[in-house]
Amino acid sequence: MDDSVKKLAVLGSTGSIGRQTLQVVRNLAGRFRVVGLAGGQNTELLSQQIAEFQPEFIYYQPTHHSPLTTPNCTFLLMEAIAAHPDVDIVVIATSGKAGLSATLAAVKAGKKVALANKEPLVMAGEIITREAKKSGAQLLPIDSEHSAIWQCLNGESQPPQRILLTASGGPFRGFSPEQLAQVTPRQALQHPSWQMGKKVTIDSATLMNKGLEIMEARWLFGVPIEHIDVIIHPQSIIHSMVEFVDGSFKAQMSYPDMRLPIQYALTWPERVPNPELPKLDWDKIKALTFEPPDFKNFPCLELARQAAKTGGTSPAALCAADEVAVELFLKGAIKFPDIARLVEQVLREHQTIFDPTLDDIINIDRWAREKALQFFNKSN
Amino acid sequence: MDDSVKKLAVLGSTGSIGRQTLQVVRNLAGRFRVVGLAGGQNTELLSQQIAEFQPEFIYYQPTHHSPLTTPNCTFLLMEAIAAHPDVDIVVIATSGKAGLSATLAAVKAGKKVALANKEPLVMAGEIITREAKKSGAQLLPIDSEHSAIWQCLNGESQPPQRILLTASGGPFRGFSPEQLAQVTPRQALQHPSWQMGKKVTIDSATLMNKGLEIMEARWLFGVPIEHIDVIIHPQSIIHSMVEFVDGSFKAQMSYPDMRLPIQYALTWPERVPNPELPKLDWDKIKALTFEPPDFKNFPCLELARQAAKTGGTSPAALCAADEVAVELFLKGAIKFPDIARLVEQVLREHQTIFDPTLDDIINIDRWAREKALQFFNKSN
Repeated sequence: MDDSVKKLAVLGSTGSIGRQTLQVVRNLAGRFRVVGLAGGQNTELLSQQIAEFQPEFIYYQPTHHSPLTTPNCTFLLMEAIAAHPDVDIVVIATSGKAGLSATLAAVKAGKKVALANKEPLVMAGEIITREAKKSGAQLLPIDSEHSAIWQCLNGESQPPQRILLTASGGPFRGFSPEQLAQVTPRQALQHPSWQMGKKVTIDSATLMNKGLEIMEARWLFGVPIEHIDVIIHPQSIIHSMVEFVDGSFKAQMSYPDMRLPIQYALTWPERVPNPELPKLDWDKIKALTFEPPDFKNFPCLELARQAAKTGGTSPAALCAADEVAVELFLKGAIKFPDIARLVEQVLREHQTIFDPTLDDIINIDRWAREKALQFFNKSN
Repeated sequence: MDDSVKKLAVLGSTGSIGRQTLQVVRNLAGRFRVVGLAGGQNTELLSQQIAEFQPEFIYYQPTHHSPLTTPNCTFLLMEAIAAHPDVDIVVIATSGKAGLSATLAAVKAGKKVALANKEPLVMAGEIITREAKKSGAQLLPIDSEHSAIWQCLNGESQPPQRILLTASGGPFRGFSPEQLAQVTPRQALQHPSWQMGKKVTIDSATLMNKGLEIMEARWLFGVPIEHIDVIIHPQSIIHSMVEFVDGSFKAQMSYPDMRLPIQYALTWPERVPNPELPKLDWDKIKALTFEPPDFKNFPCLELARQAAKTGGTSPAALCAADEVAVELFLKGAIKFPDIARLVEQVLREHQTIFDPTLDDIINIDRWAREKALQFFNKSN
């Protein structure tokens, strides 16, 4: 094989980011070879992807009812795919905490790790960045905000003075507490500017997503939490900004389409034309607007910031409680404002372990999920 | 002297950019030593600057009525100061075509040349960039737009796909032809966002300034004229944008204060805190707005673009005619719309010399000035 062809493993290939990653690979024919695919329970789509990309290694959840027939593929656990010597870049496109151990495996193996899944860094940022330093692994952000920051820091020799994360504000920006109590999962899944998976779309609606991004930014760019701020920018054209010591800001902008940050992570440090990507049309952009976040009606942002400041196992507890709460909301079992309430209850009971091991984090994750369900059951 | 102290010559030190350059030097005490100062006819201010900074070399217009007594300074022509072995960075803060030959001298001597004066590059961009390549001179833009582009290109390995120059639109944005016919020099000198010299302030009001910036950008960044566009952005917070081949944009933003681009050029590649510089306050920025330029009522922009496309001596003819026209307007001798008319008349008579020598450019400059005065005299 041509040495310049990069060998990709896409973990979470049947999810939103996974599918868009494969679109980018398709559009940039000849640059990448997909050697590993890992999906969840959507084995029909995974079968199609396997037929098209003919990977060497696959993973799927072995509990499902229609086993895949894949004579030419080796079944491996995600951790084994992520660390396999035949893989150059691992795309972590899983959701929630599912990508944690595969991310750590890829990092320990010194891979380029393109991270779309926030939770691994949020839960275990200290461990992951420490291991990356040891192995020489590179963390390449796929999140649009972190890709923006990464692009803005390109070529700068000094760390940023401040990071300004932009947030669309989600579908319920400006809603009153009464309105928020009435919103349905269906409404919450209608994001005004981004096509994303269910978990992250709900997290965008509660602003929890922005809180998780603060933590992600802290680990990716080594900036203290106090120097990371959030600003609401409903048009989702500026994907984030960086302020330097001299007071100069840089912002990265593009049409809101996840395929651009995905592509940038895969082709970096090169930029590559991709006619499939929609372009910004400045004749149509009349105004970019900004407003402060509504911390009162969207308490998840402050909960996340507090967990970040506390550190230790607090972010892991927050993530786990949020994952349970979002699932309950999507099932119609709790109301939208209950998501923050449930997370807050769990955090209040949580005894933070500082400088945690991975086992500590995994234990706290389990504890927080159980606790969240207990609180839910008690209130019903 | 400490080797890390950079030795500066400031040409045009009594003008707006010159004075602000010296403010930056004052605020960053210990980093720079001013070894050369060149002023025009404001010998009172120049005397004060000489007393404060104690340069080795000075220049002033020797025709004035109160000769300077400067026992410790050597009087040299600007070209000699610009090329002197004791100078590291030459700040070209002159106005109009006054800086042309000093810029060329600095470039030939392989200096770092911090360019605030647009006309040298506009008139003789091809010669200046060719000579810079030979000598290894570095052109460091001080214009806020070009500083923005330069900052956005930092660390990028590929040339930009497109440059989007932002323009405030000046004090007469949205004016009708009838209103434009009535505006006074006093009104034209009230720029909504920038503190600048008279010539560039009037050029901002006619949009000629943005046309000259297109040409400057072409030479500084090697981007074809067709890939340089102008967008009106009245808040003057985004100082310009760059689009890359993948459709990603980067923008540089800051409070509109010329001291930031001046400082960036002087401290580059480092960024340095400067508490004197006003900072952007995102709590107060509600919206950044954009609109297309009004080519019809502000014909200077299109005249400049045409001259740029024609190339050769056309930009020099445009610059010279504009300098005469702006002077006549400031004296109250012609009306605001006559500036464009006079420039257009001169360009119509101009026989472009392609691949011109410096002599050709200087001859055309003289011809265009005479021609502009002839047209003025004929019409009065």
